Amino acid sequence: MTTDQDLAELGQQFRVDAVRATSHAASGHATSSMSAADLMAVLLARHLRYDFDWPDHPGNDHLILSKGHASPLLYAAYKAAGAITDEELMTFRASGSRLEGHPTPRLPWVDVATGSLGQGLPVGVGIALAGRRLDPMPYRVWVLCGDSELAEGSNWEAFEHAGFEQLSNLTLVVDVNRLGQRGPTRHQWDLDAYARRADAFGWHTVEVDGHDPAAIDAAYIEAAGVTDRPTVVLAHTQKGRGVSAVQDREGMHGKPVPDTDEAIAELGGVRDLRIEVERPAATTAPRQAHGVHADLPRWSKGEKVATRNAYGEALAAVGADRGDVVALDGEVSDSTRSEFFAKQHPDRFFECYIAEQELVATAVGMQVRGWTPFASTFAAFLTRAHDFIRMAAVSRASLSLAGSHAGVAIGEDGPSQMGLEDLAMFRSVHGSTVLYPCDGNQTAKLVAAMADGGGIRYLRTSRGGSPVIYGPDEEFPVGGSKLLRSSDEDRLTVVAAGVTVHEALTAADRLAADGIRVRVLDLYSVKPVDAHALLEAAEATGCLLTVEDHRPEGGIGDAVLDAFTDGRPVPRLIRLAVETMPGSASPEEQLRDAGIDAAAIVAAVRRQLDEPTVA
Amino acid sequence: MTTDQDLAELGQQFRVDAVRATSHAASGHATSSMSAADLMAVLLARHLRYDFDWPDHPGNDHLILSKGHASPLLYAAYKAAGAITDEELMTFRASGSRLEGHPTPRLPWVDVATGSLGQGLPVGVGIALAGRRLDPMPYRVWVLCGDSELAEGSNWEAFEHAGFEQLSNLTLVVDVNRLGQRGPTRHQWDLDAYARRADAFGWHTVEVDGHDPAAIDAAYIEAAGVTDRPTVVLAHTQKGRGVSAVQDREGMHGKPVPDTDEAIAELGGVRDLRIEVERPAATTAPRQAHGVHADLPRWSKGEKVATRNAYGEALAAVGADRGDVVALDGEVSDSTRSEFFAKQHPDRFFECYIAEQELVATAVGMQVRGWTPFASTFAAFLTRAHDFIRMAAVSRASLSLAGSHAGVAIGEDGPSQMGLEDLAMFRSVHGSTVLYPCDGNQTAKLVAAMADGGGIRYLRTSRGGSPVIYGPDEEFPVGGSKLLRSSDEDRLTVVAAGVTVHEALTAADRLAADGIRVRVLDLYSVKPVDAHALLEAAEATGCLLTVEDHRPEGGIGDAVLDAFTDGRPVPRLIRLAVETMPGSASPEEQLRDAGIDAAAIVAAVRRQLDEPTVA
Repeated sequence: MTTDQDLAELGQQFRVDAVRATSHAASGHATSSMSAADLMAVLLARHLRYDFDWPDHPGNDHLILSKGHASPLLYAAYKAAGAITDEELMTFRASGSRLEGHPTPRLPWVDVATGSLGQGLPVGVGIALAGRRLDPMPYRVWVLCGDSELAEGSNWEAFEHAGFEQLSNLTLVVDVNRLGQRGPTRHQWDLDAYARRADAFGWHTVEVDGHDPAAIDAAYIEAAGVTDRPTVVLAHTQKGRGVSAVQDREGMHGKPVPDTDEAIAELGGVRDLRIEVERPAATTAPRQAHGVHADLPRWSKGEKVATRNAYGEALAAVGADRGDVVALDGEVSDSTRSEFFAKQHPDRFFECYIAEQELVATAVGMQVRGWTPFASTFAAFLTRAHDFIRMAAVSRASLSLAGSHAGVAIGEDGPSQMGLEDLAMFRSVHGSTVLYPCDGNQTAKLVAAMADGGGIRYLRTSRGGSPVIYGPDEEFPVGGSKLLRSSDEDRLTVVAAGVTVHEALTAADRLAADGIRVRVLDLYSVKPVDAHALLEAAEATGCLLTVEDHRPEGGIGDAVLDAFTDGRPVPRLIRLAVETMPGSASPEEQLRDAGIDAAAIVAAVRRQLDEPTVA
Repeated sequence: MTTDQDLAELGQQFRVDAVRATSHAASGHATSSMSAADLMAVLLARHLRYDFDWPDHPGNDHLILSKGHASPLLYAAYKAAGAITDEELMTFRASGSRLEGHPTPRLPWVDVATGSLGQGLPVGVGIALAGRRLDPMPYRVWVLCGDSELAEGSNWEAFEHAGFEQLSNLTLVVDVNRLGQRGPTRHQWDLDAYARRADAFGWHTVEVDGHDPAAIDAAYIEAAGVTDRPTVVLAHTQKGRGVSAVQDREGMHGKPVPDTDEAIAELGGVRDLRIEVERPAATTAPRQAHGVHADLPRWSKGEKVATRNAYGEALAAVGADRGDVVALDGEVSDSTRSEFFAKQHPDRFFECYIAEQELVATAVGMQVRGWTPFASTFAAFLTRAHDFIRMAAVSRASLSLAGSHAGVAIGEDGPSQMGLEDLAMFRSVHGSTVLYPCDGNQTAKLVAAMADGGGIRYLRTSRGGSPVIYGPDEEFPVGGSKLLRSSDEDRLTVVAAGVTVHEALTAADRLAADGIRVRVLDLYSVKPVDAHALLEAAEATGCLLTVEDHRPEGGIGDAVLDAFTDGRPVPRLIRLAVETMPGSASPEEQLRDAGIDAAAIVAAVRRQLDEPTVA
C-alpha cells in the first residue's frame, strides 16, 4: 500500500463491504461505516501496528471503534487484513456469528464492547495510561469515534484525564459526518468548535478532510510526532460517502442502502484488496511481577473495625503480594480507604478525581492490558458508572469495584451519600459477583478472593466500625454463607449481611433470652447466594426474615429467592429493608427509623410467630 | 447592605454560623462553607431576587447549591434572610431536622437535592431553559458549585447544552478553593484552565478574587449584562478561609474546625446581621394553559403496533390535551418515537443530544418550574443517568421517563442496545412507578396516567410490533394487572409483561390444546404490583411462573415477591429470564435463545407439572 490511490481504493472496498454486509443482513449501519472508511483505510495500511495472528502480543496497538454501530467498517478492515474471510463477513448480524451488530470481544481483536456511545475514549485512556505509567510500552491507542457522541460527558472526563496525564500515545479520530441518528448534530461541520474544546482540555488538534488519504496520513504522522499530549484528529466527512442515494442525507441512519447493486456500482464494484498490517516490534511482556508475599491484615474477635478500613488494608496487602493489582479512586480515597494502597504502592495507584465513568472506564482499560484493577468510590456514586459497568460485562471484563458508605448506617450525611440501590444495580449485571462483608477478617478474605475472580466483582463496605466476629483464619468462599446462631428449636431464620448481621445477632440473643430461638445466617455472598444453606434453613425453620440496609427491591430480600425459583416449595418470607426516605440522623437512629435494627427484627419475629411483645 | 464592608461582615457571619452549626452537630463541612461565604454574601445581599415567604413565586430566582456539602453556608444564608431561626440552624444534621447534611426540598427554598456532585449545573440548565423557551420569565438561575466537581462529565454536558442554547439567564459561580476532599484538585488555582474550557463551550467567563466583595459584586453585575450566553464566575478562594487552623490546609475536609471558640474569635465573633433579600417584581404566573382536548390514540384488537409507537402517539395526544406536558429526548426521537410529540408540539420538545445525564437533569429542572416532563431514550442508556434518577427521588421530583428497545427482543443490534437491567434500576428507586405495557391501547392509557402521577415514573417500551389484545376503552390502573387466561382448572399461573405476554398467551393456548390449563396474568404494573391478583393466583394455582425479557435479578420475578414478603405462605416460583449474554439474532431467535419464548414456557410448565412433553 504505497500510493494514496491505493488507500482510496481500500476505502472504497470498505464501503462496498459495508454495503454488502448490511444489505445481506437487512440491517446495520451502512452510512456510518462509509463516512469513516478512509480514516480506517489509512490507519490500517500505514499506521496501525498489530499482529492479527497474535492478538495478545504485548506490543500490539489498540484500536477501539467507539462508534460501535459502524461495525461493518471494522469487519471490512479485518477482512482486508486477512483476519476473517469474506464468507464470515457475510454472516454479519446472523444468529451465532461473532460479527455482532456492535463489536464485542467474542472477536479476539476487539478489546472492549462498544455500542453505548461515549465509552471508547474513556476506556482508551485507561489503556494508554497503562502503557505510560504501569509498563512503559511503545504501543499506541487509536480510538475512532463519531461526532454525535462528543455530547456525552464521559468523553470530557476522558479528555480531561488524558490531557492532564499528557497521554501522547493516544490518538482520537473523530468522524465528523455532521449527522446523528435523528438529524444534524449541534456543531455539524464546525470542526473548530470541537478543536476549541479539545485544545482547552490540553489536547493537540488537527483538522482534516476525512476523505483525502494523503491529508489523513499527514494528520496521523503529525499525531505520532506530538510527545507531550494526546492528539485529536477532527475529520470532515460525509455520512454515506460515495453513494448518492444516501450521501449526507438525513433519515439514512442505521439501515442498508436502498439499492445495493446500484450502490456497489457507484462505488466502483467489489474489490478484494489485501493489506499486510505492520506487526509490532518484538517486545518484552509486561511486568506485573508478583511482589513480596504479604499477609492479609488480621483482627482479633471483638476488635472494632470498619469494613472500609479492612478493605483498604487488605487491598494494600494484596497489592504487596501481587504486582498485577492496581487501585483507582474517585477523589475519595480517604473515605474508601484505598489510600492505604496508595501509600504503599503509589506507582500502581490512580487518582481519577470526581469522574466515576472515567474511573470505571480506566479500570476497564487497564484490565485489557492484563492488570487486575480495583476501583473504589462511594457505593452511591457508582450509580454514575452504571452504563460502563453494564458494558464492562458485555466486554467480558475482569474488574473489581468497591463501594463504601453503604446504606443509612452512614448516619448524618443523608440520602445523597447513602448507597441504597447498589445491590440491585450490581446483582442485575450479567455474571457479576456481589459481596457484602460484616467484619474485618471477612472483608480481607473477600478482597483476596476478588483479585482471583473473573467478571464484575462488587464489594460493599460500611462507614462505621463494627465488632470483629470471625477469627482471622476463617474462610469465606464466594457463594458461601455463615451460620452464626443455630439450634434444633429455631423457629425462623434471620438472613442478614453487613451492618444488619450485628443487629440480627443482638435480636437473636434478645429473643433467646425470652426463649424464642431463631437462626442467623450471614449472607455475605449476595450473588451467588448460598442456595444450600438457604434451603436447609428453609426446611428447618420454614420462614426466612431478610434484613438489609438497602431498598426493598433488588437487594438481599430478592437475592434469597435465587435459591427458590425452580418450582420447589418456598418458605414464608419477611423482608425488612429501607422503605423510607432518610434524612440526617446518627447511625443508630437511622437503623431504627428505617426499621432494620435489632428492635425491628425482634418485633417482626414476634409478629410472625405470634408471640406477644414483652412489655 | 450598601457598603462592601457590610458584605464582608455578612461573609464572616456565614463563616461563624457554619463553624457553630458543624461544631454543634459534631459533623459537617465547615471549611467548604467558609471558602464560598463571600460569594454567597454578595449574591444574597445584592443580586438574588427571592421572596422567602413565597417560595413558589413564579418570579423568584433559583439558587442551587451544587456543592451540597456546604449546606451550613446555605442554612446560614437562610438565617440571615430571616427564613429560619438561629435555633433551627443549631438543629443542623440532627434527627428530624429539615436542615440535613446535604440540602433537600424538605426545605421550601430548595429546588432539588444536591450532594451528589456535578448535578446542580445540569439541573440549573433545565430551569434556565424553561425560563427562556417555555415561558419567558425574568428570573435568573444561580448555581454555586465547587472546583472538584468540574471533573464530572455531567457538568460538561451542561456547559454544552447551556452554551448552545445561549442561556444568559444562567450564572455559574465556581468556588475554586483548590482542595478537594482528599487533596488538591487537578488544576488547583489555575483559574485560566477552567476559563479556557468554559469559553470553548460558548460561555462568558469572569475570574475574580472570591474574598473581595467589590470584585464579586462587579462580576455578578457583569454576568447580568451578558445577553447572549451564560456566564461562569471563577472565584479564587481559600478553603477554611478566615481560620488559620484550617485555612488552605489539606485534611480539613468534611469536619468541624478543631477549636470552635478560637475559630469564632478569629472570625470576629458571633454576629446577627439580617438582610432584606430583594423580592421579584410582580409577574404573571407561568402559562401551562391546557390545550385543545385530544383523544388518546386507539387501536383495534389484532392490529399490530409497537409499544414505542403507541408511546409516541399517546404522548403527542396528551401534549395536545395538556399544555404543561413537555418532551425531551437524547437524539433518538426517531427510535423512541417522541418525534411524534416533537412534530405536533415543537415549542415543547427539547433535543438534549446524546447526553443522558443532562437529559434527565433538564427534565428535573423543568418540573421544578411546574412543567410535566417526559424524557426518553433507549432503556439501556437510561443507566447513564442512574445517579440523576436516584437523586431526583431524593429531590421529590415528579418525572416521567420512557425507555425504548427493551430486552433481547430488539433483535440484531445486540447486547449494548438491549435494556436488560432497567427494571432492576427503576424498581429500586424510592417511590418509583414501573410500567411495562404489551399493547398499544394499554400503552396509551398508561402514558396518560403517567402525566397525572407523582414521583419517578418509568415506562418500558418495545421495538417490535405486537398484536393489540385489549380494546381501546379498557382501563389499566397503576398497580393493576389483567387476567388474560383463567379457568377453574388452572394448575399454574404464568406472570408476564410486555413482549412475554404474547409468548405466554401462545404457550397457554398450546398447553390448553393438550388439556393443561394455565392462568396468564399481564403484570403491566411492575411497581407497585397487583398484590391482590397475585395472591389470588397463588391461592388458586399454587405456583407462579414469571417470564421476562430482563435479567433474572430485580425484574418481574423479584417484583412478584413484593406481594408475599409479609410472612404469609408463598407459592412455588419459577423464573424464566435472560441469563445468557446475547449476541446478534432475529427477535424470535433471541427470545428462543434466552429461553423466554412460548416453547420455553411450555417446557417449564410441563417440567413443573411433571407432564411429559408431547413428541
